[in-house]
Amino acid sequence: MIKVGIMGATGYTGLELIKILKRHRQVTLSWLTSENSAGQTLADVFACPWDDPLITSETAPLDDVDVVFLALPHGASIPAVKRAYEAGVKVIDLSADFRLHDAAVYEKWYKTTHTAPELLPIAVYGLPELHRSRIRETRLIAGPGCYPTSVILGLYPLLRHGLMAEPYAIADSKSGVSGAGRKATLGNSFVEVNDNFSPYNIGHVHRHVPEMEQELSAVSGAPFTITFTPHLLPINQGILSTLYVRLKDPLTTDDLNSLYREVWTGEPFMHVLPPGKLATLRHVVNTNRVTFSTTAIDQRGNAIIVVTLDNLIKGASGAAVQCMNIICDVDETEGLLF
Amino acid sequence: MIKVGIMGATGYTGLELIKILKRHRQVTLSWLTSENSAGQTLADVFACPWDDPLITSETAPLDDVDVVFLALPHGASIPAVKRAYEAGVKVIDLSADFRLHDAAVYEKWYKTTHTAPELLPIAVYGLPELHRSRIRETRLIAGPGCYPTSVILGLYPLLRHGLMAEPYAIADSKSGVSGAGRKATLGNSFVEVNDNFSPYNIGHVHRHVPEMEQELSAVSGAPFTITFTPHLLPINQGILSTLYVRLKDPLTTDDLNSLYREVWTGEPFMHVLPPGKLATLRHVVNTNRVTFSTTAIDQRGNAIIVVTLDNLIKGASGAAVQCMNIICDVDETEGLLF
Amino acid sequence: MIKVGIMGATGYTGLELIKILKRHRQVTLSWLTSENSAGQTLADVFACPWDDPLITSETAPLDDVDVVFLALPHGASIPAVKRAYEAGVKVIDLSADFRLHDAAVYEKWYKTTHTAPELLPIAVYGLPELHRSRIRETRLIAGPGCYPTSVILGLYPLLRHGLMAEPYAIADSKSGVSGAGRKATLGNSFVEVNDNFSPYNIGHVHRHVPEMEQELSAVSGAPFTITFTPHLLPINQGILSTLYVRLKDPLTTDDLNSLYREVWTGEPFMHVLPPGKLATLRHVVNTNRVTFSTTAIDQRGNAIIVVTLDNLIKGASGAAVQCMNIICDVDETEGLLF
Amino acid sequence: MIKVGIMGATGYTGLELIKILKRHRQVTLSWLTSENSAGQTLADVFACPWDDPLITSETAPLDDVDVVFLALPHGASIPAVKRAYEAGVKVIDLSADFRLHDAAVYEKWYKTTHTAPELLPIAVYGLPELHRSRIRETRLIAGPGCYPTSVILGLYPLLRHGLMAEPYAIADSKSGVSGAGRKATLGNSFVEVNDNFSPYNIGHVHRHVPEMEQELSAVSGAPFTITFTPHLLPINQGILSTLYVRLKDPLTTDDLNSLYREVWTGEPFMHVLPPGKLATLRHVVNTNRVTFSTTAIDQRGNAIIVVTLDNLIKGASGAAVQCMNIICDVDETEGLLF
Repeated sequence: MIKVGIMGATGYTGLELIKILKRHRQVTLSWLTSENSAGQTLADVFACPWDDPLITSETAPLDDVDVVFLALPHGASIPAVKRAYEAGVKVIDLSADFRLHDAAVYEKWYKTTHTAPELLPIAVYGLPELHRSRIRETRLIAGPGCYPTSVILGLYPLLRHGLMAEPYAIADSKSGVSGAGRKATLGNSFVEVNDNFSPYNIGHVHRHVPEMEQELSAVSGAPFTITFTPHLLPINQGILSTLYVRLKDPLTTDDLNSLYREVWTGEPFMHVLPPGKLATLRHVVNTNRVTFSTTAIDQRGNAIIVVTLDNLIKGASGAAVQCMNIICDVDETEGLLF
Repeated sequence: MIKVGIMGATGYTGLELIKILKRHRQVTLSWLTSENSAGQTLADVFACPWDDPLITSETAPLDDVDVVFLALPHGASIPAVKRAYEAGVKVIDLSADFRLHDAAVYEKWYKTTHTAPELLPIAVYGLPELHRSRIRETRLIAGPGCYPTSVILGLYPLLRHGLMAEPYAIADSKSGVSGAGRKATLGNSFVEVNDNFSPYNIGHVHRHVPEMEQELSAVSGAPFTITFTPHLLPINQGILSTLYVRLKDPLTTDDLNSLYREVWTGEPFMHVLPPGKLATLRHVVNTNRVTFSTTAIDQRGNAIIVVTLDNLIKGASGAAVQCMNIICDVDETEGLLF
Repeated sequence: MIKVGIMGATGYTGLELIKILKRHRQVTLSWLTSENSAGQTLADVFACPWDDPLITSETAPLDDVDVVFLALPHGASIPAVKRAYEAGVKVIDLSADFRLHDAAVYEKWYKTTHTAPELLPIAVYGLPELHRSRIRETRLIAGPGCYPTSVILGLYPLLRHGLMAEPYAIADSKSGVSGAGRKATLGNSFVEVNDNFSPYNIGHVHRHVPEMEQELSAVSGAPFTITFTPHLLPINQGILSTLYVRLKDPLTTDDLNSLYREVWTGEPFMHVLPPGKLATLRHVVNTNRVTFSTTAIDQRGNAIIVVTLDNLIKGASGAAVQCMNIICDVDETEGLLF
Repeated sequence: MIKVGIMGATGYTGLELIKILKRHRQVTLSWLTSENSAGQTLADVFACPWDDPLITSETAPLDDVDVVFLALPHGASIPAVKRAYEAGVKVIDLSADFRLHDAAVYEKWYKTTHTAPELLPIAVYGLPELHRSRIRETRLIAGPGCYPTSVILGLYPLLRHGLMAEPYAIADSKSGVSGAGRKATLGNSFVEVNDNFSPYNIGHVHRHVPEMEQELSAVSGAPFTITFTPHLLPINQGILSTLYVRLKDPLTTDDLNSLYREVWTGEPFMHVLPPGKLATLRHVVNTNRVTFSTTAIDQRGNAIIVVTLDNLIKGASGAAVQCMNIICDVDETEGLLF
């Protein structure tokens, strides 16, 4: 059995991790931390039947676990990752702190100094569909952001085959509210969000932009730019990204579809819908799947790729467990087929 | 024109007041206060097109208005009401501070000392359907709570005619989230409320209980007891109360229906549905109406009265403007037919 | 492996059965029927990744399975159950057709002749918490209605101990929309239901009433009457029943709580919350659990029991699989802990 | 007083028309038709307090009204418009039947023969912000589609000033469910739509495309092409269109903002938000307003225009009444400021 500790167990990604790991047949949950709720149990915090105690990170015995997941706010994750990594355990970080290879880029977008830049070259961006072999060989995973997972996986087949007319795409994304985390803010209160729909941080200013551009540039071998427009949906879970691309040469919808199917062959969680069917949130919520649909529009090469995933699962905790399975040499889908 | 000031303009009842008063053909809005947002405009705070400035209560010129509405938290309302009343203006308070005639009852339920008990005998409970003539003659209105409005109006026809078997009823109430006010709490955040439904403060502990019992006891001429079970609905606005009563002698649904129609004859906002139709939130949201349906169940006299209203309108700001119309000798429905 | 066939696979309970059985480690799905969608696959009908073919009931090989689940409309289920039962397989019917022991009661409430009354004495009401030993010995299960499951389990501890002052209770129930089945009606269209909340079939007229009264009368050994008020919630899944009872002698909330804990000891899916915590839909949606909270109100013995469950799982497909596990001598929780 | 008849009063646009016209101080509702509900009253069909009778179109006296609104399905509207126009009344059609100037284009997109092509040159596209003077002089208005209203108004300021780099834009639009009309379909049932989000008819296939391209081509004086991606939001009312444009020369967000303010100067319902504020549905639902926000992205001229409106009001019934006000020489905002 793999012994697991979770730091930051009382956020939405923490809860999702716990749900997955309680299903996982080769994992024992050793401890859960929560700075705000230490001393209580999970059942005190969530409407769930689990009496697992919550402790402070300070008192969490790192030497008692094989793997530590960190579901902490960005910034707060850096020292915790460092401590865990130095204690010799496998570390899977769900924050943004180790996703960007370049500390200067991190500091520009997150307005804070990176205090463990020496770990950046060791961290692997936890997208198994792109980096499976490198994930297998590290002890430090940087779990990707939820929006970037949808955008990167959605454009990857086109970029790998060099089909785009320009190193540029538009991502019009829509996310459920849990993406903003479990916290009390007026903007995320029920009355403000319900029956409403609103864009935020649009254009080229959302913090997920550099992460997308880093990965897409690496695939295409040249600087890639994204126009990124996130919107807030009045639902709990799920991301749908509508990607607008221009291809060098027009392809038919059928050709695009075949391309995506071929690129994702063998990937257990990539699900390309047949031509004529469009990806929806219903395809993915409460699963670790990513669903794709491809639509050619005109003779000028305009096309639309729709990508959906569950922001808390494949966009966060499911991807993290998938990485753990790879690192720990367990079947990659264990705990993730539900 | 009636010159109006609003204290506490940036809560949900404040916004609803503003919307109604901007439609009102005999009102000018003189000033709006907000301690948190003073210096900004309404359009900075709400997704609305109005540029009215927000000022602090301290700087609000009481001598410049005929009527002041107070949409402040309970407790905070007492000194503000006192100041306004002493300045000689007409005062309509939407808080709970002047609803209970007995300061000791107030202090027991609200756990705070009442610092203006001398005003309690002057305050009239602002339910025109019960107290229209007394409302006409006061300068201080205590706007009723949203739940009590539904329960009191729902039981009033039976009590006025002395038809109940015992001085007791069960009120199973369901309310939209705006009833909790405009503030950031984890419990009212979108993800917690959406797709959920939950009871709270059930039995005989919610602060609206003494208000219901005070008014129902007054109508029936003897102590009346309520079992009150509020639940939180995943919607913004609206209250539905399902009232369970036992009648002395069984009545048919038709007889109950006739009784309610007769009692509410001439009331512009009371709407009794025909037998067989049941009251829903759709009947009332965004209106000042109260909708009733009556259902006899069995030969033992069990019956169900369903009552619906919009908690922000007839349950708060609409009722407040209705009282203002009465006090200011304006058509009672002005601004309220929309 | 248990070979399973499902008749009526394309309703919401059908889909939920499929999801559970695909997780079940001792089940093989042999065939799925759908009169409307025969010739298509599951993935054509639902946003899911499963390509299982859909066939007509006519062509479904009954001799190829050990267990048949029927998720058909009431009335339509009778001949299908009869055929399957006579073919010698184990039959689990999710319709209302075999729940009532008395064909005359069935005919009165369902306005249709019961064409297989000879099977009624064989059918066992599929509530393991009440009838586990009888379930083990039959080949024909009548899966309980969703509302009755909540009301019967909620009152059972009080009735078994003879604590109620009268053989009568009020059940104020609220259900998500999936309870109405998967079909196109104006009343269940999004715009009509969203932001709305409405009672329907209230008092003593809903078809689930005789089922509740049959089971509650059996437990209490005397005719038991229910006032039942269902309401439609703007959510997909979940039932919350607020039960109003009067006890012979008042009990404290703690005593009530201990009683419920004791009665449900050893039951894997019954979950009694500690005093002070109230049952919500969040506790149960997407699980096979039933959550209870108990609240004493006053010295006259008034008390409130709140019960929640997922109408599609413990209220239908989860309970059906639980019964299958019992009949097939498999661990009762297999496939149901998710 | 203007005497008004409404054909097709029991759809969502019909109800919205009625609500607006009952507020309108210079209108009398003469009759309402509904083929399905003739013989009933409005209160039988909707949760409203109005007892207006519903009659068949056959029996509706055209000589008794000054204005007829038609809220009928496309195709069905053609003969009704023809009859009303020939009877000499003012006709405001909310269907798609008279929006396209070219009968051949209509027939290509709507797959049906246009049986009154002689009226097409008379019909004016009912967008006062573009065609006010022509609206004033006709007796036949073709009310614009909801999506086209958002896209045309959103691009108009750029096109009028010749600022776009190419005659092409991407419109990523999201609409509430009422846009699909009031009818029973599985796809629009609550359970299917709630907690879901889905694209449909994407690329260049939705029937609103030719209408957008007709109007945008007319403004720009050359063929204009749209990539149009509608999505279904789990809300009742509201459209948000995110428009992606490339400008000839990059402008700042401030410059774009000034341009939009200047172009819409004097328009009572066009509302340009200040730089930094983004348009949301909350700005417009239950109003006749259109809200715009403008965001420059980069030095290559990429920019995003966000436009919101209420699909039932400015996207249908509000615009229709606005046109009526113009034709009937009434204040253009009468009935529309609420």
